[in-house]
Amino acid sequence: MSSEISSPFAFPAPGKGAALEEDTLLSPRFDANGLITCVAVDAVTGEVLMLAHMNAQALALTIETGEAHYFSRSRGKLWKKGETSGHTQKVREMRIDCDQDAVVIKVEMGGTGAACHTGRRSCFYRTIPLGAAPSAELKLAFTGDAPRFDPAAVYGKDGHGHDH
Amino acid sequence: MSSEISSPFAFPAPGKGAALEEDTLLSPRFDANGLITCVAVDAVTGEVLMLAHMNAQALALTIETGEAHYFSRSRGKLWKKGETSGHTQKVREMRIDCDQDAVVIKVEMGGTGAACHTGRRSCFYRTIPLGAAPSAELKLAFTGDAPRFDPAAVYGKDGHGHDH
Repeated sequence: MSSEISSPFAFPAPGKGAALEEDTLLSPRFDANGLITCVAVDAVTGEVLMLAHMNAQALALTIETGEAHYFSRSRGKLWKKGETSGHTQKVREMRIDCDQDAVVIKVEMGGTGAACHTGRRSCFYRTIPLGAAPSAELKLAFTGDAPRFDPAAVYGKDGHGHDH
Repeated sequence: MSSEISSPFAFPAPGKGAALEEDTLLSPRFDANGLITCVAVDAVTGEVLMLAHMNAQALALTIETGEAHYFSRSRGKLWKKGETSGHTQKVREMRIDCDQDAVVIKVEMGGTGAACHTGRRSCFYRTIPLGAAPSAELKLAFTGDAPRFDPAAVYGKDGHGHDH
């Protein structure tokens, strides 16, 4: 398993101002829990597939292997995407934002193409209606992104999902 | 200013399992700081523009007005995108993820079209090279997304940027 690959590299402490935003030095700003946010988008369509988190080890392994690794906040451990379900993510491009606390990865999905633990292609399968103040009448609408696999069959009845 | 619009609506407490993931009830899972994560993408191209955070008020105002509102963690207050710079975001579609702790908004940018406080279209204007373990030799590469305005002229020398 890739979680056995060690990565002794320590990322530089984050700079400030221009050193952080206008330089070529990668100096991630991990939060109080040691995490940065990662947005995974489809490398072909650009569709946002999921949002998850990376600690320094997950970030280093993703850079080194080109396969998406995350840190599961609920399970408290490194998580190679697809290690249980086969829904791996091959990273075609990785970008970091201005203040270096978030990355975007453009990925090719493995398996059925479902990035979401519910079996859907994207985790963002419901829209929020706009134009009226939120009220008890507000109802989310499904986009039609239908499940491609049965989560219970893959993860078991107590399936952990992608960050659960 | 839109921050004067009050929104007395209290979002329902988040459900669990199927109630959270397979239902039409919007029940956002705000974190310990009362925030959810928002990814803003270009409504036309799908490009990821920026990542920021919303508290309950920012979320309610965005839903009600169709204009992106965020919560600035560094300034500790509600922030209507573009209120200083004119780089507003008209929300064409809003989606929430499976476990309701993140939203994606598809936006039309106002002003010069720059979503980033550095003056660039996207905050994700640098790529991280892949395929080798991170080391002191790793260098970010600029994508060519050039600044469209002078941040110092818009925000002043002590410019706060988008979440600073």
